[in-house]
Amino acid sequence: MPYKTVETGEFAGWLCWADDPFESHAGPYYFREDEHGPVAAFRARPHQMNGAGFMHGGCLMTFADFALFALAQPDLAGDHAVTVSFASEFLAGAAQDEWIQARGEVLRNGRSLVFVRGLVTAEGRACLNFSGTIKRVAR
Amino acid sequence: MPYKTVETGEFAGWLCWADDPFESHAGPYYFREDEHGPVAAFRARPHQMNGAGFMHGGCLMTFADFALFALAQPDLAGDHAVTVSFASEFLAGAAQDEWIQARGEVLRNGRSLVFVRGLVTAEGRACLNFSGTIKRVAR
Amino acid sequence: MPYKTVETGEFAGWLCWADDPFESHAGPYYFREDEHGPVAAFRARPHQMNGAGFMHGGCLMTFADFALFALAQPDLAGDHAVTVSFASEFLAGAAQDEWIQARGEVLRNGRSLVFVRGLVTAEGRACLNFSGTIKRVAR
Amino acid sequence: MPYKTVETGEFAGWLCWADDPFESHAGPYYFREDEHGPVAAFRARPHQMNGAGFMHGGCLMTFADFALFALAQPDLAGDHAVTVSFASEFLAGAAQDEWIQARGEVLRNGRSLVFVRGLVTAEGRACLNFSGTIKRVAR
Repeated sequence: MPYKTVETGEFAGWLCWADDPFESHAGPYYFREDEHGPVAAFRARPHQMNGAGFMHGGCLMTFADFALFALAQPDLAGDHAVTVSFASEFLAGAAQDEWIQARGEVLRNGRSLVFVRGLVTAEGRACLNFSGTIKRVAR
Repeated sequence: MPYKTVETGEFAGWLCWADDPFESHAGPYYFREDEHGPVAAFRARPHQMNGAGFMHGGCLMTFADFALFALAQPDLAGDHAVTVSFASEFLAGAAQDEWIQARGEVLRNGRSLVFVRGLVTAEGRACLNFSGTIKRVAR
Repeated sequence: MPYKTVETGEFAGWLCWADDPFESHAGPYYFREDEHGPVAAFRARPHQMNGAGFMHGGCLMTFADFALFALAQPDLAGDHAVTVSFASEFLAGAAQDEWIQARGEVLRNGRSLVFVRGLVTAEGRACLNFSGTIKRVAR
Repeated sequence: MPYKTVETGEFAGWLCWADDPFESHAGPYYFREDEHGPVAAFRARPHQMNGAGFMHGGCLMTFADFALFALAQPDLAGDHAVTVSFASEFLAGAAQDEWIQARGEVLRNGRSLVFVRGLVTAEGRACLNFSGTIKRVAR
């Protein structure tokens, strides 16, 4: 199975990829589906900050890359896929202990390419706008 | 001082930011200036891989974000700056133990905005094309 | 005055920039504010097609660039601004005679930079996802 | 034949697409191969300017989209292709009568996707950095 359900703590009931070393290390990041559709989230922790005390842009982009796949899960329907292109704008900083969340939508689910866009927020404040193209691959 | 010199190991003589938790955690990543200009690099390690055994896109983008500032160091001349926008294309995978490197150039060093583009390679193979806009800030 | 009101035809009551040669030539493109906020639109015409008979990507991007400013009009409040960065994904083609429209939102209205994202549709079908950073300038 | 050779004027000997209405209308834009590889170019004319008297960003992006395909011509080897994603940064303005040129390179020529990046210059001054992903299609 490509993902597992978290059993305890703040994210009990959420899913995360079962075996992705960098996502566990940089995150961990979580996702689930609620009444508004797929949502990805995590709680900002000290190892994710930059030298100025705000969340590192690389952590936000890693989470956004994770979110591309979380948001596309229903459309991918089990297919493997890789990121082809990624674009983002940094709107505001995020601070330690804040609730970081991403929502968005699949704009087109093509035969080969899936187009996704989303917005990362910190306690509801827009932090990172992102869009990405992912490509189905045989594994 | 914003950065420190590595004293031992494969990257002895290279620089890294002295106090950036996420870059130390996701990387560490290094930079220096050689006869061709600024260069950023690291050695691919197990915690940077994804579930398919290749380098996670988030690790590549975190390194590229690091590289934006490494490449702009001479132009920033000590100014603080933040990433405003970032775009990238994923060209090929990178594998554990490979030498990952970024080179590139400042395309415009404006009063407020600095425009940078670069290419991440793995053992010389093009992996990630990236461009970013960074903005000088008072701290 | 930076824009004028169209007096006749399908776009009577819409606005367009009064003196922008390329937008008149490539478009013309129009905008107004309705009950859902700012909206930009035009009717696809023969000179906007590519060699395959669909709307040229450059026409879609020119319209998206126009739309960045139309969508940001209320936030710019008369300030002059220029595009700093632009990213887009091409989701589907648009055909001659279709109604092409863009909606979107200002994600952050900063002191210097304004961040905008939007979606171009053709007869309601998603065609181009776009985001851009624009910068206030003194003129 | 998808392109024709210009016979007279400043661009005699250059190529342009034979039947692309918007490129003829917004441009025309030209390309050829010289000793440094593929190059695209045009001469800035009044209809390509914006309201401030500089080249419109949409004209620069339309030219960059044209250049993606011009730069990829040798790699496409006659295949048809469409733009999938496009990213750019605006570095400086271009003025009427200036010589506008784009050079760049194919970063990866995949089975389905071709990745290209380039730089538009005006009289040698960097104006627009761009990268794009194009996709081979059957027609």
